[in-house]
Amino acid sequence: MNTLGRIFRITIHGESHGPAIGVVIDGCPAGIPLDPADFEEDLARRRSGAEGTTPRREQDQPRLLSGVWQGRTTGAPLHVLFENRDTRSADYGNFTAIPRPGHADFTAMMKYGGWSDPRGSGHFSGRITAGIVAAGVVAKKVLQHSLLRAARLTADNGQVQGSSAVEHAEPDLASAPAPTGIRFQTSLLAVGGSKDINLAIQNALKDGDSVGGLVEIRIRGIPAGFGEPMFYGAESAIAHALFAVPGVRGVEFGDGFAAAAMRGSEHNDPFIDAQGHTSRNGAGGINGGITNGNEIIVRAAVKPASSIARSQHTWNFAEHRMTELQIPGRHDTCIVLRAAVVLEAATACALADLALLWLAAMPLEQNIPWRHP
Amino acid sequence: MNTLGRIFRITIHGESHGPAIGVVIDGCPAGIPLDPADFEEDLARRRSGAEGTTPRREQDQPRLLSGVWQGRTTGAPLHVLFENRDTRSADYGNFTAIPRPGHADFTAMMKYGGWSDPRGSGHFSGRITAGIVAAGVVAKKVLQHSLLRAARLTADNGQVQGSSAVEHAEPDLASAPAPTGIRFQTSLLAVGGSKDINLAIQNALKDGDSVGGLVEIRIRGIPAGFGEPMFYGAESAIAHALFAVPGVRGVEFGDGFAAAAMRGSEHNDPFIDAQGHTSRNGAGGINGGITNGNEIIVRAAVKPASSIARSQHTWNFAEHRMTELQIPGRHDTCIVLRAAVVLEAATACALADLALLWLAAMPLEQNIPWRHP
Amino acid sequence: MNTLGRIFRITIHGESHGPAIGVVIDGCPAGIPLDPADFEEDLARRRSGAEGTTPRREQDQPRLLSGVWQGRTTGAPLHVLFENRDTRSADYGNFTAIPRPGHADFTAMMKYGGWSDPRGSGHFSGRITAGIVAAGVVAKKVLQHSLLRAARLTADNGQVQGSSAVEHAEPDLASAPAPTGIRFQTSLLAVGGSKDINLAIQNALKDGDSVGGLVEIRIRGIPAGFGEPMFYGAESAIAHALFAVPGVRGVEFGDGFAAAAMRGSEHNDPFIDAQGHTSRNGAGGINGGITNGNEIIVRAAVKPASSIARSQHTWNFAEHRMTELQIPGRHDTCIVLRAAVVLEAATACALADLALLWLAAMPLEQNIPWRHP
Amino acid sequence: MNTLGRIFRITIHGESHGPAIGVVIDGCPAGIPLDPADFEEDLARRRSGAEGTTPRREQDQPRLLSGVWQGRTTGAPLHVLFENRDTRSADYGNFTAIPRPGHADFTAMMKYGGWSDPRGSGHFSGRITAGIVAAGVVAKKVLQHSLLRAARLTADNGQVQGSSAVEHAEPDLASAPAPTGIRFQTSLLAVGGSKDINLAIQNALKDGDSVGGLVEIRIRGIPAGFGEPMFYGAESAIAHALFAVPGVRGVEFGDGFAAAAMRGSEHNDPFIDAQGHTSRNGAGGINGGITNGNEIIVRAAVKPASSIARSQHTWNFAEHRMTELQIPGRHDTCIVLRAAVVLEAATACALADLALLWLAAMPLEQNIPWRHP
Repeated sequence: MNTLGRIFRITIHGESHGPAIGVVIDGCPAGIPLDPADFEEDLARRRSGAEGTTPRREQDQPRLLSGVWQGRTTGAPLHVLFENRDTRSADYGNFTAIPRPGHADFTAMMKYGGWSDPRGSGHFSGRITAGIVAAGVVAKKVLQHSLLRAARLTADNGQVQGSSAVEHAEPDLASAPAPTGIRFQTSLLAVGGSKDINLAIQNALKDGDSVGGLVEIRIRGIPAGFGEPMFYGAESAIAHALFAVPGVRGVEFGDGFAAAAMRGSEHNDPFIDAQGHTSRNGAGGINGGITNGNEIIVRAAVKPASSIARSQHTWNFAEHRMTELQIPGRHDTCIVLRAAVVLEAATACALADLALLWLAAMPLEQNIPWRHP
Repeated sequence: MNTLGRIFRITIHGESHGPAIGVVIDGCPAGIPLDPADFEEDLARRRSGAEGTTPRREQDQPRLLSGVWQGRTTGAPLHVLFENRDTRSADYGNFTAIPRPGHADFTAMMKYGGWSDPRGSGHFSGRITAGIVAAGVVAKKVLQHSLLRAARLTADNGQVQGSSAVEHAEPDLASAPAPTGIRFQTSLLAVGGSKDINLAIQNALKDGDSVGGLVEIRIRGIPAGFGEPMFYGAESAIAHALFAVPGVRGVEFGDGFAAAAMRGSEHNDPFIDAQGHTSRNGAGGINGGITNGNEIIVRAAVKPASSIARSQHTWNFAEHRMTELQIPGRHDTCIVLRAAVVLEAATACALADLALLWLAAMPLEQNIPWRHP
Repeated sequence: MNTLGRIFRITIHGESHGPAIGVVIDGCPAGIPLDPADFEEDLARRRSGAEGTTPRREQDQPRLLSGVWQGRTTGAPLHVLFENRDTRSADYGNFTAIPRPGHADFTAMMKYGGWSDPRGSGHFSGRITAGIVAAGVVAKKVLQHSLLRAARLTADNGQVQGSSAVEHAEPDLASAPAPTGIRFQTSLLAVGGSKDINLAIQNALKDGDSVGGLVEIRIRGIPAGFGEPMFYGAESAIAHALFAVPGVRGVEFGDGFAAAAMRGSEHNDPFIDAQGHTSRNGAGGINGGITNGNEIIVRAAVKPASSIARSQHTWNFAEHRMTELQIPGRHDTCIVLRAAVVLEAATACALADLALLWLAAMPLEQNIPWRHP
Repeated sequence: MNTLGRIFRITIHGESHGPAIGVVIDGCPAGIPLDPADFEEDLARRRSGAEGTTPRREQDQPRLLSGVWQGRTTGAPLHVLFENRDTRSADYGNFTAIPRPGHADFTAMMKYGGWSDPRGSGHFSGRITAGIVAAGVVAKKVLQHSLLRAARLTADNGQVQGSSAVEHAEPDLASAPAPTGIRFQTSLLAVGGSKDINLAIQNALKDGDSVGGLVEIRIRGIPAGFGEPMFYGAESAIAHALFAVPGVRGVEFGDGFAAAAMRGSEHNDPFIDAQGHTSRNGAGGINGGITNGNEIIVRAAVKPASSIARSQHTWNFAEHRMTELQIPGRHDTCIVLRAAVVLEAATACALADLALLWLAAMPLEQNIPWRHP
């Protein structure tokens, strides 16, 4: 199922060594300013080049084939296409007999009966994630758009739910990309267990190995009220999107796994002001699957890249024996460097969908005694 | 969005103190033996009673209102209804002015404009999860059914994909509930950070506090080939379902968060035999979003129950000041004891949906040279 | 797939002779006044009793088991349950060997391998449509709610799209059930090809036969802008819902099948005023899958009831020969009498879903030069 | 919502005068032979050229950008792209002030706030349907694939449901494109109400007018058992797809609207043999939303093209007065000539989705006494 979302929906297609990859972005409201240049910043963050990333160079020049006219979204589906240029299939054999450890070679072969495209991992290549990043750019604009629409409602019906978040986001307005104050802050907490990221990468590179890493995404300015319990809660929607990114092994919110070792009196997060701020935001901005207006905090564990220069011992299914495998080609020593923006984009896509659902089902009147329009 | 799944779909309804809760289970194949008694074992695991669980007693007597005739599923939607009996609304005030920390009182109020049912957390109550457990019972039967159908295919087209898993599940046949050897094993790894579960609970109970816990679910016998990349991969589907269970703060597969601190040479999981077993199953049985036939290993972190006997300091939204809150009613000291089976059921529901998608799109022929019918 | 819709979603369950039937209504905004009495009017229209309807009597007393508290929707799923009382399974044999012509006996048997519940057509019984009628009652309220929300927007951003329809609905305000002027008008155009409905029914009754009929549904007050091209256009959504009602053989909009015999110059429907009224509304209020603010006009052809008192010749699959079949039990001579309100309800459900999608994706600003806020 | 289907899912994108249009086809099983040449026949049927079709010439050269490798589907989404070449935007003004009667100019403007792409009807252009035709080609292959899989099952479990249809399709094997005997037969019953199609077109052409037409699609070889009651029945799924095709005003099955004027004794369709053939197939091959193994018969009424050479009187929204409108550009006098294959393709897409759902939920055993393996 290559589609994510219910209203804001993205559909991915393409293979690493096919002619092109792309994404169709549907359910995007009309009239949102969108320019091909808007994609540049995030795509650059995903692009290789830094130490520890593959030498493969793709310009990732997005072609906006539909859904935009005169610089605004039209309401029709957007299609962003990336032509593949720097492909060297010679690098890749057919990994049918000796599927690469940690890769999807074996599982794709089993699921698709040996018919899947093995060149550069085909549809399972990290290359495909360029489409997620492109969708994320649009998703962030949809989030801004949604909060502006909600703020407009506030004008005449006093308090729209969630507006408290809009309020306490106001201090951010200066630095924020838009007056609604939504701000994504994505950081790499550690690589290979070390906070010294460069050193960890250099060591792995030296050993012809790869390293995993821990990414944290914080989002400010999301109002209270995003998330559809019980099966489309904010954590479900975000985790669903994050686990779709190749290499993600774990996802946690707020205190995350630490919460399992805590007492209720520690983990509970009392409200401390009229805006609904909590004492320590251990819930990561989500209660009962619904955002509470505090900063959303989500972390994802990304495994080390499976393709390493070092030789590995694995099974040869054709010859029924263990064998030594040397993986040729160009590898990432630390995919986390490039995965961070993909995880941010996936989170944005999930939130954009929740934003539109939030706008769809907003109540007409408020029944909250202490709320005075 | 109270529906989960694409073919095997469950829809939850009800509130803690309403007349009844229930679940509609759609997309269940016809002809599967199903008896009201089949629900008893898992429902009993969720029921309160053990030390550390709420004194509230619900018989959880499931009424099977549709979808079953003469002891077999009919192909029509199943409806399982649980009447609520032991409700004491007197216990619960309206938490509008002083929303309980950690609960959905505040977020539900913001999202639904103050119209949501606050009695016993209403639709956000753990009570609702009885429906998930009931659906899980059916899901496990659908999984068995699906593997039997696949095995039948194997008879004439040699190797169906995934059959390798059916093979290496054979050692389990004796102990397994069905010849296909699917087996769920759910365990409580720790409570409040300690492996001494009873002690941790007693201490918390003594302090009028609550404790979180860590649950691990292992599933054997799932063939290679479950999971629809890229946005409905096995991790995405399972995590989506698990995060729908109240109190889950984190989900990880195989090495999980530890993978972020590993090297590729450590984390990579070479295949070691013709059945596709891997050396250490650090991937938790999933590569590229598709099951690889090894045991599926998933862990979920469950937070401590938010309702505790101890008083807490939190904001009074009506009086614009901090206040002391004492939560009346009957509480769970350790919801993990009861959540474990719910998490198992949610996982089963996700897998049952993937099983039917797997059957739907199976290729007609195999193109795997080393596979000989 | 027993679920209809994307945001406003209804899930049906139950069998004719099971203990109960029901419907889960999800995606309903919070704060909408809803009382069990609200269901009475439409349920009465579906109830048997009139000449030409089955003597079977069901009180169709709806039990509102969830989603409503203190007379308002809570945002949680509504569950409406109808207990089955007046069932006489003795009336029904097992139609396995001699499936009733026109019924689902044969197809259900083939699809479900003989496991489906044959009692009173089981899940295929018209009885199940009580749930659709109940959902329709809620859908109509969601439509009113949606237009009120849109009207509120109009207040500060001048013209919301679709507001022209709200305008020209104003003349209806007096007679309309709500200030937004949405009005459903469902009429039986003909029965058995005759406009003299009573006579046609009496004759059929006399002959122990049944008659089909033609139903027309007109909806006023739907603004321009409902419908999501291209695969969820207004016609697609409405026709999808109508064909789910047992016995519907055809659906047409506006000029319908007559359009196939027309010239463009005849069928084209020029706009004639600033409100977007068209000269003859031959499009039935829909252009390009999107409502244009004119009255929506849809017609459905309902076949004669398949169960008739007269004996029929059909195949005996057990004895491999033609045989004479006499269908016992209580039959409707003219199901159209009762189907009309079901068709109206199904249309309302489709429109309510489109209304919420319309609210979700509304643009922030207008780019229509001739529109002055 | 530009996506159709649940498992076999197609997503359309593009505008008439944008750089390209296309379709993403997801949920297609792996290993199905597919060559770019396979699209040629159906695309040619949609292409203009015949008298009565637009002089605009598009090569409709499909670029298969993903999902196929070495001539077989890979299980990954297919992307078919059509570059737009012969566009003359000069032909089209901005129809904001004077929306063309019968077109989506007005409704798109209202829905999207004036941001939609008006060039050549933008996303609402018949041009977009090239993607539906391409998807239909794949859908027909998926149907063949599905029946072959079901037939394989028959080998060891005696009778798979639906096999009776496979049986009585056998006489077709010679002429059929595949051994399963699925055959689409699409014909133009009438144009402008006349059976003399050429004459009707010539007359309309002479008058600078356009004509509508009636299309009938018959499908042989579909087994009993396709269709998911109650909200995804065969009629609902097919009608949903057909009404997505621009210009469709009505859809009927079997006796269709004529059934409304019939008696039960006339319309009822007794079974006449062990294969489940019925006496006159008045149900059009569908009972209770499920196919019965007889030929599927569906008709669609297509309106006359809205763009005509003759001038029309319509409203000028900018100048608030009626005005004369002359539509420049290249028009189809009779779009039905080209719509027929689009309707066939849309039907194939709906059936392919039902086929995969049918395979997904097939029962393991049969409980039909008169069926002997």
